[in-house]
Amino acid sequence: MSENWYESLTDAELNNEIAHLEERAAQIAAQNLKLDMARGKPSREQLDLSRPMLDVLGADADLFDGSIDCANYGCFEGIPSARALFAELLGTQAQNVFMGGESSLTLEFDTLEHAMVKGVMGNTPLMYQMQKAPLKWICLVPGYDRHFAITQHFGFELIPAPLTGCGPDMDIVEELVKDPQVKGMWCVPQYSNPSGETYSSEVVERIANLKPAAADFRVYWDNAYCEHHLYEDDREHVDSIFDACEKADNPHLVYAFCSTSKMTFPGAGVSALAASKENLADLAQSNTNRLIGHDKLNQLRHARFFGDVEGLRAHMNKHAAVLRPRFDAVNRKLEQELGSLGVASWTHPKGGYFVSFTGMPGSAKATVSMAKELGITLTGAGSTWPYGEDPQDSNIRIAPTMPTLSNLEQALDVFTVCVKLVSARLVRDARR
Amino acid sequence: MSENWYESLTDAELNNEIAHLEERAAQIAAQNLKLDMARGKPSREQLDLSRPMLDVLGADADLFDGSIDCANYGCFEGIPSARALFAELLGTQAQNVFMGGESSLTLEFDTLEHAMVKGVMGNTPLMYQMQKAPLKWICLVPGYDRHFAITQHFGFELIPAPLTGCGPDMDIVEELVKDPQVKGMWCVPQYSNPSGETYSSEVVERIANLKPAAADFRVYWDNAYCEHHLYEDDREHVDSIFDACEKADNPHLVYAFCSTSKMTFPGAGVSALAASKENLADLAQSNTNRLIGHDKLNQLRHARFFGDVEGLRAHMNKHAAVLRPRFDAVNRKLEQELGSLGVASWTHPKGGYFVSFTGMPGSAKATVSMAKELGITLTGAGSTWPYGEDPQDSNIRIAPTMPTLSNLEQALDVFTVCVKLVSARLVRDARR
Repeated sequence: MSENWYESLTDAELNNEIAHLEERAAQIAAQNLKLDMARGKPSREQLDLSRPMLDVLGADADLFDGSIDCANYGCFEGIPSARALFAELLGTQAQNVFMGGESSLTLEFDTLEHAMVKGVMGNTPLMYQMQKAPLKWICLVPGYDRHFAITQHFGFELIPAPLTGCGPDMDIVEELVKDPQVKGMWCVPQYSNPSGETYSSEVVERIANLKPAAADFRVYWDNAYCEHHLYEDDREHVDSIFDACEKADNPHLVYAFCSTSKMTFPGAGVSALAASKENLADLAQSNTNRLIGHDKLNQLRHARFFGDVEGLRAHMNKHAAVLRPRFDAVNRKLEQELGSLGVASWTHPKGGYFVSFTGMPGSAKATVSMAKELGITLTGAGSTWPYGEDPQDSNIRIAPTMPTLSNLEQALDVFTVCVKLVSARLVRDARR
Repeated sequence: MSENWYESLTDAELNNEIAHLEERAAQIAAQNLKLDMARGKPSREQLDLSRPMLDVLGADADLFDGSIDCANYGCFEGIPSARALFAELLGTQAQNVFMGGESSLTLEFDTLEHAMVKGVMGNTPLMYQMQKAPLKWICLVPGYDRHFAITQHFGFELIPAPLTGCGPDMDIVEELVKDPQVKGMWCVPQYSNPSGETYSSEVVERIANLKPAAADFRVYWDNAYCEHHLYEDDREHVDSIFDACEKADNPHLVYAFCSTSKMTFPGAGVSALAASKENLADLAQSNTNRLIGHDKLNQLRHARFFGDVEGLRAHMNKHAAVLRPRFDAVNRKLEQELGSLGVASWTHPKGGYFVSFTGMPGSAKATVSMAKELGITLTGAGSTWPYGEDPQDSNIRIAPTMPTLSNLEQALDVFTVCVKLVSARLVRDARR
């Protein structure tokens, strides 16, 4: 970040600049805008890409997957073709995959609830451990608010640990897991939400080699964006955590998750969990009582629509074509409006759904609040931190996927005015 | 039941009869049959009835339900048209309905897990109550093994209480709920699994007027077979439990469940929970962390396929036409082979999925085991009782829906031979 331009102004110049920005804000307010950049929701154009899937299973379709009748009860672990597909995405074998329902978030919640109620692989249920002393969970920051919310819901103390641009700061993580009260860590290893970073091979190897003090510590490896590249010729990939765990002789450390939420229809897709045979058998103690099997027709619909991993990747290229102009617009607008001011930095992700924006310390809440008043809904400031408490109050998650391109550009114009006005006021207030 | 015919025979006659039956069993064994009457699975003919639903949402379909985009995130509680439909089925208003995933069994499990982990409406989590003293659950018998399995999984002591032919023996239930350790009761109020009975108005009223000692006692009202009539001109109906609870000023007593598992495709349908506003708000504390919303495309597919409750009932009439001959065959075969022997009785349900068969005390396990050897898989003996322990060892659940009619008749021929042979041997053994 270059020097803060507002600080180079005289008091009079700064007040003049603030008055000018306030005037622009008033003009915007008069437009009564109503634009939403709050959540990582796909756009209408993206949803339409998956409409052909709705024709895959018609009234005359063969509803068998091999010997499995997808139209009737049974096949608890999911149908073979779907398990095989997700095994490739998650870097493991089909027999290590359990097919979930519509969302990996739910699968994560249910997996942790099993640990709370029944315990992990024979260990004392976390509910009972928690009575004796607080349990803790590592939350990499900036991170995903819904992950943090799950562990908060179950009563964990959320311990923030920094991401570095290529995954977590492993010196810190290795230190934290020495505490037997630390029971897990959320990871989004590829195109992380919201930083967009992908874990390096070294980080994956160090995670696989973690020797937590708690036998029931688990890494929740949410590979939500594994195929969500923006640039066909510049893709990032994360190493298979299962290969790394096997090499590290640490086979039970990780549960990996994935879903089609941002491949086909959010909330109407299929999800999967991959883990060691022993972990799956442990989870099955709960799951066999909980369900007979998840929606096999939807599994079949997805498996046939994609065909194989190459088909899935071709489909994701279509998503990328829709998303690239949006991400390019974010970078262009931010660069154009803020690039020379030295008040903010932002990420340049090669995939995923977000741009992570960092403004001046103390600016985020004020910026989001001002944008809201001007008709632009952003993700709540602080939401990328445990308990919504960003200690610097500087991070804002930008979600550019949902609006149309022209709405997005309009929203960014408003957003940058807010950033400038809040930054200028902060400089002025500091002088008082 | 008339007098036991085998007891009227002399020892020589009885031995002769047993030898004759053993010969028939040997002939059957030589046929290497492989028939399944174990579970309440719809037949191929039934599944085909719902195939047109697969064309309802094609690639060009309108994917909005009113203002709700069913193809994107959101609408946590479920889409309006699906909530309205299930509200009619469950005898309540749409605002009291929460749409679940593929199965009501899962919804029941998750609802109880909320009580275990977070507690019911501010009460101490059941996990913590359970540490101090055992908690109990009322299991009406004969009942549904998967219900019993859920409460066993969570560590409840299962207390059997008898059904009477028109619902639970309420004198016993009213006595049981005076114990503050008793936290709930499973009910299948219409065409109960497996007895086929429907709760009378008096029973519904007495349930609604229960004053359990435990504030967190809940009735799990699984109305799985609410529209599963066999005879258009002879239908049973259960009163709205919500109306009864309102009249009894007991609005939070009941969670009601329902699904389309046996209306469209088992495991690929939609489910619903109905409860008071306060109960729903309580459950939402868990559910809002667990999911963004269940599969709205499948909700839309179902809502459009049925149209309304009348459309749903017309569809269920088609199921009835498939099922009637099967239930008639069960009754005809049992009557023909066993009617005059005085060794067994069975139910004559007007709906649902099962016939409940009661043989001589001590006969059920031996009958199921012999049938298995002869190639007929039945539901495990005792499975209709908590812990699989039928104190009389006399009850067998017959599930006639899945086999073709000719396979079913063949299976019943084998079954009745088994019943006769086991009964005759029991009489012989008693004489020794």
